[in-house]
Amino acid sequence: MTRAEASLAHLYKVFTKPEGNDSRLLQIEQHLSDNLADFLSRHVVASNTSLEDIEHHFDDAALPEHPQFVSEHAEHLLEKLVSNSVNTYSPRFIGHMTSALPYFHLSLAKLLVGLNQNLVKIETSKAFTPLERQVLGMMHQLVYEQNDEFYAQYLHSARHSLGAFCSGGTIANISALWVARNTLLKADTEFRGVQRDGLAAGLQHYGYKKLAVLTSQRGHYSLRKAMDVLGLGREQLIALPCPDQTLDAEAVRQKGRELQEQGIKVMAIVGIAGTTETGHVDPLAELAEVATELHCHFHVDAAWGGATLFSRNHAHLLNGIKLADSVTLDAHKQMYVPMGAGMVVFKDPQASNAVRHHAQYILREGSKDLGATSLEGSRNGMAMMLYASLHIFGREGYQLLIDQSIDKARRFAVMIEDHPDFELTTSPHLCLLTYRIRPAAFQSPDNEKLDMLNKAVQKQQREAGNSFVSRTRLETKDYPETPITVFRVVLANPLTTDEDLHAILDEQAQLARAHKIWTELS
Amino acid sequence: MTRAEASLAHLYKVFTKPEGNDSRLLQIEQHLSDNLADFLSRHVVASNTSLEDIEHHFDDAALPEHPQFVSEHAEHLLEKLVSNSVNTYSPRFIGHMTSALPYFHLSLAKLLVGLNQNLVKIETSKAFTPLERQVLGMMHQLVYEQNDEFYAQYLHSARHSLGAFCSGGTIANISALWVARNTLLKADTEFRGVQRDGLAAGLQHYGYKKLAVLTSQRGHYSLRKAMDVLGLGREQLIALPCPDQTLDAEAVRQKGRELQEQGIKVMAIVGIAGTTETGHVDPLAELAEVATELHCHFHVDAAWGGATLFSRNHAHLLNGIKLADSVTLDAHKQMYVPMGAGMVVFKDPQASNAVRHHAQYILREGSKDLGATSLEGSRNGMAMMLYASLHIFGREGYQLLIDQSIDKARRFAVMIEDHPDFELTTSPHLCLLTYRIRPAAFQSPDNEKLDMLNKAVQKQQREAGNSFVSRTRLETKDYPETPITVFRVVLANPLTTDEDLHAILDEQAQLARAHKIWTELS
Repeated sequence: MTRAEASLAHLYKVFTKPEGNDSRLLQIEQHLSDNLADFLSRHVVASNTSLEDIEHHFDDAALPEHPQFVSEHAEHLLEKLVSNSVNTYSPRFIGHMTSALPYFHLSLAKLLVGLNQNLVKIETSKAFTPLERQVLGMMHQLVYEQNDEFYAQYLHSARHSLGAFCSGGTIANISALWVARNTLLKADTEFRGVQRDGLAAGLQHYGYKKLAVLTSQRGHYSLRKAMDVLGLGREQLIALPCPDQTLDAEAVRQKGRELQEQGIKVMAIVGIAGTTETGHVDPLAELAEVATELHCHFHVDAAWGGATLFSRNHAHLLNGIKLADSVTLDAHKQMYVPMGAGMVVFKDPQASNAVRHHAQYILREGSKDLGATSLEGSRNGMAMMLYASLHIFGREGYQLLIDQSIDKARRFAVMIEDHPDFELTTSPHLCLLTYRIRPAAFQSPDNEKLDMLNKAVQKQQREAGNSFVSRTRLETKDYPETPITVFRVVLANPLTTDEDLHAILDEQAQLARAHKIWTELS
Repeated sequence: MTRAEASLAHLYKVFTKPEGNDSRLLQIEQHLSDNLADFLSRHVVASNTSLEDIEHHFDDAALPEHPQFVSEHAEHLLEKLVSNSVNTYSPRFIGHMTSALPYFHLSLAKLLVGLNQNLVKIETSKAFTPLERQVLGMMHQLVYEQNDEFYAQYLHSARHSLGAFCSGGTIANISALWVARNTLLKADTEFRGVQRDGLAAGLQHYGYKKLAVLTSQRGHYSLRKAMDVLGLGREQLIALPCPDQTLDAEAVRQKGRELQEQGIKVMAIVGIAGTTETGHVDPLAELAEVATELHCHFHVDAAWGGATLFSRNHAHLLNGIKLADSVTLDAHKQMYVPMGAGMVVFKDPQASNAVRHHAQYILREGSKDLGATSLEGSRNGMAMMLYASLHIFGREGYQLLIDQSIDKARRFAVMIEDHPDFELTTSPHLCLLTYRIRPAAFQSPDNEKLDMLNKAVQKQQREAGNSFVSRTRLETKDYPETPITVFRVVLANPLTTDEDLHAILDEQAQLARAHKIWTELS
């Protein structure tokens, strides 16, 4: 056997034979399975390591020349990567929209990679294609509540699509506005449509100077990205002020009329069902009415808040969502599915035909290949994770999860209001709220200094690594002119207890009181 | 304890305590770990089930009301989903670009979900952000071979980016052309740029009627999708004929000049390094020259073929790739990483600033958040899978894999040429080739009938489920006028033996000879 043949034989083993049970990688796996919380608390340790220090572990762009043993590499990952990761599972990590996951996703992740299907095309996904279509149907029903006949007709129709699965809310929002743009500038007897002839020709044909999209200042940054990508220009996203944190339908009506009088066509209104920064829900039913008046697309970004629809106690908070032409949902937020499970659903099963593509060797006409109407091409089978969650939790289970989150946010708001060092800056909406350090004892609210103090505390808390809240800058009802710096928390982790919340406030108060700005201000 | 409290207590268990080792899901996991090939051959069984039958398993859009036990659901997934999936691991499944994966990815998938980092933002990814930047640097070096100083300067720079990780080649191609468009129609003293003011204003300012992109007819369908999304219009993708399967640089030069004389600006030339249909590589160095002459962006779609650069024996086949302004690479193809690992790399570390975005609560200016210059927002940490593969295989290991694939394709071509029933329709390029049933004994090549026969055999073979080749329609050197139907195979699976290849040909010959068209034609 030559050296090359021997190396090749060794390589084949990596494709066929796992190492023994005593291998480092399998030990890690076992620990993950046995007790994820324990694994993370033991291995995610270096939370106060600076980013620069972490970067030193990952600053070699040279390709390694020689192979490394799997066990050796596993140890390397533990030391350099896992130890410096963020413990998103921790009940005191409440600053972002991801949280603890149900343990069964660990096993399913392995099944997903073992099957390694490609959802772009039915030949490499087969059962996953119908499964994904069913999941999209379930999400469609969650939002639009159509009857059985509707789903019998459209769920598996090759000429229709109830939505698209994608990596996340950004792609979902871009997809929705792409459909809106292509539908508005569609083909007619004298024009071949924006899809074929482009945006400039479309605007000219229909006599529009520009296309605008109306939303609130709390609209997700991905909407601006969408405007850029779609060629509409970021400045044509008109983000209306919202000191009350929600979009004022009357202001949208006025602005829309004003624009249309100037020859600028309103292409879409985007309402938000759970803003990223404060959790507020726009008046969806009223916005739908304005969209009808302005003859434009109505999109709802419910990436984070959409899961509220599972709860019969709280679904009413999203009243009017079923009037939307399209809705963005992220299962990796309040549906407790791992990262990478975004979706857009369309009310009209014909809608996505505005962006349908075909090719010879793939996505043949009449085929049910999912890639024909989605922005992404090759994709993995993440829909399975949501499918499993929907069955294992059931609607009832999700309702319990949603309800406990909202209850917890309300209890936390009370704790903040009862605490002399803090100010609740926006009341809890869904399970999100914002607050800041602002002791009642301070003479006057010197917001500039308070901003510095809040920013410093948030950073110190993050670096200490026991807990994490995020921060943002907001105009609020009490501070409508200049944005103030606030803490932002999302109470979605079912493992977070009231004790955790008290501990977080105590830590912040302690850090604040030790800070020199505190002394200056008191 | 009320019923609701009891249910909630049960739900918490799903977040904290795995079921016992005897649970169905853990049994499945164990089987996956012990012997993936055996798991798949036992459970992926119903390969001749019709799509309609599979759809019946997934035709209920109603949300399940009540929770289901995890073990019960695991059994359901095995019966309905896994059994009807495609065995992409099988050495006789050679029709697509995915293949068997090294076993360590199963464990890593579990680690990835256990950590559940969100790469959009450093606060929820921390070590994963530097890791992803390193991986992008490694891919940049694979393509552009810059020196250590270059990477020391740019790898972790907040104001630069060497590329973007994304779900797949489609998003990578869209990202590259997005950067090209925004760079071409950039801001100057009298114009705020296409990113802010949109495409129509950009065209007007620069005095272009339209923007065109030149590629060959073998260009990936995602390029047309990109033209649509970016507002350029699908018709402005000029796909030049290529009976030799590669783009003729002189034809591009002529067409480019012709367009520019008409006031249509050539925005980009897209060369392909490994076409999806035949594996051919365009003359990249010549195309780069034409791009320089036309003052346009040069993009190379090396989604599939890029991994060839790992092999010192075959890297020369991609000569000129380092002259590209941007390159698409898919690690889930010839780098043997699970689905969902696409990338685009940019020669100029400033390039992606043309699409940079900021937001208050996220992607703050000067931050190193990866979401600031990527099309996608929230994303998972797939880069870890490629990082691990690069270390565990090393460049040497990848070279062995690439070399064995190319050798195998060449051997398969000889088998086909030696077989009286088959015709090699395109010679092997990289590890891809096409062929068809066309017995020497047949009187004249009645291509219409042969197409029907080849199509029928491909379908029957797929339905029988022992093996899988894909099919497409192609113009070739011998048949330059009307496309013919051909089989298409990718010999990337290291587990595929010559015996497997003989078996595939035998099965096809047998199916063909039993078909009524064969009798008609002989």
